[in-house]
Amino acid sequence: MKLKIAIVILLMFSFSCKEKTTTISDDKKETSTATSQEHPNLILTAQGVKDIRAQLGNIPIFDKSLEAVKKEIDAEISAGIEVPIPKDYSGGYTHARHKKNFVVLQKAGVLYQILQDDKYAKYVKDMLMEYEKMYKTLPLHPKTRSYARGKLFWQCLNDSNWLVYVSQAYDCIYNYLSEEERNKLETNLFRPFADHISVDSPQFYQRVHNHSTWGNAAVGMIGLVMNDQELIDRALYGIKGVNLDTKAKDDDGGFLNKDGKAGFLANIEEPFSPDGYYNEGPYYQRYAMYPFLIFAEGLNNVKPEMKIFEYKEGVLLKSINALLNLSDADGDFFPLNDGQKGMSYYNSALVTAVDISYHFGDQDPGLLSIASKQDKVLLDDSGLAVALGIKNGKEVPFTRKSINLSDGPKGKQGGVGILRNEDIELVFKYAAQGSSHGHYDKLSYSLYEDGEEVIQDYGLARFVNIEQKGGGNYLKENKTWAKQTIAHNTVTQNETSHFTGKYEIGSKHHSVLNYFSSENEQVQVASAKEENAYPGTEMIRTMAIIKDEDFEKPYVLDVMKIASKTVNKYDFPYYFLGQVLNTNFDYKTPETLKILGSKNGYQHLFVEGSARATSANSKLSWLNKGKFYSLTTVTDNNDELLFTRIGANDPEFNLRREAALMLRRKNTKNTLFVTAIEAHGSYNVVSESAINSKSNIKELKVVLDTQDYTAISMTTVKGSTRLFITANTNASREASHTLKINEKNYTWTGSYYYK
Amino acid sequence: MKLKIAIVILLMFSFSCKEKTTTISDDKKETSTATSQEHPNLILTAQGVKDIRAQLGNIPIFDKSLEAVKKEIDAEISAGIEVPIPKDYSGGYTHARHKKNFVVLQKAGVLYQILQDDKYAKYVKDMLMEYEKMYKTLPLHPKTRSYARGKLFWQCLNDSNWLVYVSQAYDCIYNYLSEEERNKLETNLFRPFADHISVDSPQFYQRVHNHSTWGNAAVGMIGLVMNDQELIDRALYGIKGVNLDTKAKDDDGGFLNKDGKAGFLANIEEPFSPDGYYNEGPYYQRYAMYPFLIFAEGLNNVKPEMKIFEYKEGVLLKSINALLNLSDADGDFFPLNDGQKGMSYYNSALVTAVDISYHFGDQDPGLLSIASKQDKVLLDDSGLAVALGIKNGKEVPFTRKSINLSDGPKGKQGGVGILRNEDIELVFKYAAQGSSHGHYDKLSYSLYEDGEEVIQDYGLARFVNIEQKGGGNYLKENKTWAKQTIAHNTVTQNETSHFTGKYEIGSKHHSVLNYFSSENEQVQVASAKEENAYPGTEMIRTMAIIKDEDFEKPYVLDVMKIASKTVNKYDFPYYFLGQVLNTNFDYKTPETLKILGSKNGYQHLFVEGSARATSANSKLSWLNKGKFYSLTTVTDNNDELLFTRIGANDPEFNLRREAALMLRRKNTKNTLFVTAIEAHGSYNVVSESAINSKSNIKELKVVLDTQDYTAISMTTVKGSTRLFITANTNASREASHTLKINEKNYTWTGSYYYK
Repeated sequence: MKLKIAIVILLMFSFSCKEKTTTISDDKKETSTATSQEHPNLILTAQGVKDIRAQLGNIPIFDKSLEAVKKEIDAEISAGIEVPIPKDYSGGYTHARHKKNFVVLQKAGVLYQILQDDKYAKYVKDMLMEYEKMYKTLPLHPKTRSYARGKLFWQCLNDSNWLVYVSQAYDCIYNYLSEEERNKLETNLFRPFADHISVDSPQFYQRVHNHSTWGNAAVGMIGLVMNDQELIDRALYGIKGVNLDTKAKDDDGGFLNKDGKAGFLANIEEPFSPDGYYNEGPYYQRYAMYPFLIFAEGLNNVKPEMKIFEYKEGVLLKSINALLNLSDADGDFFPLNDGQKGMSYYNSALVTAVDISYHFGDQDPGLLSIASKQDKVLLDDSGLAVALGIKNGKEVPFTRKSINLSDGPKGKQGGVGILRNEDIELVFKYAAQGSSHGHYDKLSYSLYEDGEEVIQDYGLARFVNIEQKGGGNYLKENKTWAKQTIAHNTVTQNETSHFTGKYEIGSKHHSVLNYFSSENEQVQVASAKEENAYPGTEMIRTMAIIKDEDFEKPYVLDVMKIASKTVNKYDFPYYFLGQVLNTNFDYKTPETLKILGSKNGYQHLFVEGSARATSANSKLSWLNKGKFYSLTTVTDNNDELLFTRIGANDPEFNLRREAALMLRRKNTKNTLFVTAIEAHGSYNVVSESAINSKSNIKELKVVLDTQDYTAISMTTVKGSTRLFITANTNASREASHTLKINEKNYTWTGSYYYK
Repeated sequence: MKLKIAIVILLMFSFSCKEKTTTISDDKKETSTATSQEHPNLILTAQGVKDIRAQLGNIPIFDKSLEAVKKEIDAEISAGIEVPIPKDYSGGYTHARHKKNFVVLQKAGVLYQILQDDKYAKYVKDMLMEYEKMYKTLPLHPKTRSYARGKLFWQCLNDSNWLVYVSQAYDCIYNYLSEEERNKLETNLFRPFADHISVDSPQFYQRVHNHSTWGNAAVGMIGLVMNDQELIDRALYGIKGVNLDTKAKDDDGGFLNKDGKAGFLANIEEPFSPDGYYNEGPYYQRYAMYPFLIFAEGLNNVKPEMKIFEYKEGVLLKSINALLNLSDADGDFFPLNDGQKGMSYYNSALVTAVDISYHFGDQDPGLLSIASKQDKVLLDDSGLAVALGIKNGKEVPFTRKSINLSDGPKGKQGGVGILRNEDIELVFKYAAQGSSHGHYDKLSYSLYEDGEEVIQDYGLARFVNIEQKGGGNYLKENKTWAKQTIAHNTVTQNETSHFTGKYEIGSKHHSVLNYFSSENEQVQVASAKEENAYPGTEMIRTMAIIKDEDFEKPYVLDVMKIASKTVNKYDFPYYFLGQVLNTNFDYKTPETLKILGSKNGYQHLFVEGSARATSANSKLSWLNKGKFYSLTTVTDNNDELLFTRIGANDPEFNLRREAALMLRRKNTKNTLFVTAIEAHGSYNVVSESAINSKSNIKELKVVLDTQDYTAISMTTVKGSTRLFITANTNASREASHTLKINEKNYTWTGSYYYK
């Protein structure tokens, strides 16, 4: 039957995009008996409302979520409607108020459906009419900083946010309104609104970019509610006949539309890899997730025949799993590329993601434990499914394992490897540029213990929505510091960022996986190559987390192999967080702090200490949040060791004053950086007891380094010696290797050897 | 009856301090029917054991504590006894092992009594015999750094710790041992041990100091168990006939024995004020607390006629209340003087304190809520009382209110005022020097919101028990930085610390309370004077926390009035924690960071920014842990504003890189520093919403300043104006005042006016 209706709809659309295919009744009493063609049908469905109402009072997490929303909206209704003339940037009053309004409208609409109390519908109607009154004569927003100015907000992006939410509100009260009222709203508000963010703002809309996804979803969702096929098509496929200059750039330095692709489907196609990795990284995926999923849910409800959740082999649902795996033990997303630290799966977009993934996916019971922690659900069919799952005791812990996520539309543009063992997590980035929010951080990594950063990725230089800090927008230090290579835990060659810090070059390239091995629970390894960041220089980095009986916790082994045609200076920083305990090298601290360099991020670093390496292993121990860490790195007498601190040339205190140890190797062509990082012991400030506060590594040594193999021996304080050999070439799981080191033969199958 | 026994005991003691007054039975079966003269009688009592055994399995928090101890000790027994030859400083192996041993012995003794399982008694006996074997020929500890070397440990202090715990273990297995065994232990171990830490180490024992308290308790407790009146007297009154050089100093720069007083009673008499404030501050009180209370409990059990808990009007129990009030909302102690941050009422000494306070005090049900959070109780009569209280639902929240704690043996040497309103806590220090652990911080303060530091006190420069950091002992930066005036939120005159940083001078003086007013819940005020820190300069500081309808949260008003006979340079820092958001003054940031000065702590400060004040109010806003703060201070065009950062001249990274804003006023005799600090709003990093992120103060203005009165007007952004007048003289609660300001008359009674 669904199929037949679909055909009818398609046929009718081909005649008129304005003609209604469903019989809309003005009789409000019919709401609860609506069929799939009636309203609500976008996110809430008539059948869903019926099911929810049947369970109310009997589904704790849903009841609680509903109660919270009711309390919030009742307070808003008492406070009265405010629809101010737009004036401010983000952080300012009118921005915040309009932002609040769209959230409130959506919630009030839902309450109307679930509680069947007309006061909510009336509130939505009244506020929409206020918007209608204002919008029909509203000029462009007075603030001019955006490449695509909105009308309610300073940028079209926020206008699109508004419409994504308000479409849902409109759907919920559709039948409450008279046809005349609907015509008024659609003619004076929704249609021109949709046009402004699309045909009037192609530089915003006609792209593959998270901004455009919001635009597409906004246009598509109001199109679904209005049953306007032109809008739906514009949402799915972009504006017909409009092609942007493929070389123009946006505010962030990203290409406006490199490939000429546009529309919601292209926005699914391009940024997601087959594994569900989103090319801009988890912070922006979280932001983009909501329009992807909420529009998909709407499409699935209104146009189930499109099978949107199966599109590109189910990539939307896969992307939720990928996103959850890109969070640490506390649920905080790894701050890859531009990402504000602290963003986590507690964000409301992730409530949407988790509930939709559970409901439209395969009911993974691990998702229920995240929903439990979120302590709220969507007030729709998917939220009901989650609430029932939890109520029926199906919840199991969500467990994160080591995972390799490919990047690129076809999964051929590098990726992100996450190694996990016990409480240790290592995020290794060998992805493509990551669109305009990408950093110049090839083969960089960050390290976590139980949700706390050990070796940090700086993240972004921005205080999102804090008006005092550049209006809450990107700060100039994001470009001069946060994106630069030296801000990351990877090699900087000759004080120059990867791809000379140029997006045009960076976006053409990606690193390449050498191998990823997680079958052996004791030894998890990721290895990747980068040949383009510095032309003429090849880097292969192999990172392992190893659980070894001589160590209390899994330790990290890091082998960065560099082969270059030229003589270079290599800087290799470790952005450790915490208090220095001691080193095995003598360093000098200067009386005045000077900057390390003049550009490419170096101008933001003060030198707090310097030394020349004096032994074959240089060691640093530090203490962070009650845990001890030790770093052991292979050095020779020509190596310099620098303690740096972020914060130079920072005239508005936009940067955090955090430290690094930097290994500097000059006048070198080919070289190896070999480092072990141990997490060990603990310090309890209440009992004042320090446990296992020292490194367990006696010696770290390179025993072989050829084009094909690198072999590292590690001797523990207890006296055992381990050998790790990584295959730099021919590293497949099936490959057989035989190798002679110091007159001894080693034979194995697979990417690496460890014993 | 008790009285009679006491008299008998006293009479017998007058003949022989060695003669036993109780009939000790070798028959182990009699343990559970022992009378008050039998063992155990020190901490556990025979009756107590009976009561505990009757309730076992029925007192959840006690049962849980017992289970945890049993698990720990069973594991220790399996692991076997280790009594290594002493060798290391704190943090090293032998130190840690002997430290562990005494804790384990005490616990095993208790388990023997409560569980009546001989394996625990045997374990205690076997380990004691190992100690006996070693001790009788043991030389001084090989490490020489202490002014009073121990034998098991590098300092007598730790030897005393050992004996305080082991006395309890010995008491518990006293009846398990044969008389011969007891003689062996007492002759070869306990008696010489007690002698070493007392008669052989008078520079350690014969003082009023927390170290000596441990020594006194150790000697007294083993004396009580051995029923050795000579030792008991030595504990209570010090070593007969020994007087130390009153000008000699200890390792920390404190006088060894300025007044010639000694013994446990003197140690109660001297350091505690009548309000229970301990002169070294809460961190050291926590450390000293255990020997005070555990020896007092022992005295109370063995010699109830002494009424030790009523000594000096019950100061021991009062001191527990004072100590709990010297903790923030999370239970962390304010780091006054030398105090390591993070030390809290979760420390095991506070379990002792809370349980004893409840049991021997007036059963304050608020203490039960702390015991619940501690989640463990003492395994003795007091722990039983707490467990029963919790079990019977008597628990109520422990509420902290504003409190003024006098300092000095008679409460006449200044004090510490704590102002509290909602989540805001302000600790204002106008105390005496605080013994050798005191800082040069007259009229300094620190500010907290809900347990988080807003304006910090640096605390100490030490990583207690972390061997890599100077053996876990005080670092030289404790003296060069942490103790100096510039490290505190108070005035430094001419770059010189109070009392020129000299303990000999500082310890002669104290600040003086002007007034403390907490009757009005909306306005809490503390005011104090200091006339000796800088001869010729008088400072009066008045600090208020005010709840005002124009503000979201209570705000701080800070009025520092300075009158000097000479022209000076005043530095007035605010050690704010967090990220600078913005200022209303233009500052310059230097490209290289230089030190602010050459000595008295200034050599540890880098200058990160500098400005000249350009308006009548200078403002700084910052963000810390998701909350906004704004500081508004009255300035004129001659004022300099400096951003400083700690960390210069810190060759081993011993200091934390934290910031301050410093107001500098040069060429000035008399002046006022008037500042308001607001906590407001919040930033949620998950929803990325910034709420109420701006100051509510439009103008802060001095409207009158005379010798007798200082009046400040404050106008809010909403447009209301408030007037605060503080009486600098004649500030009693009853005093009447009439004052004309700008042709208007103000009349009031009391210390201050606010409207």
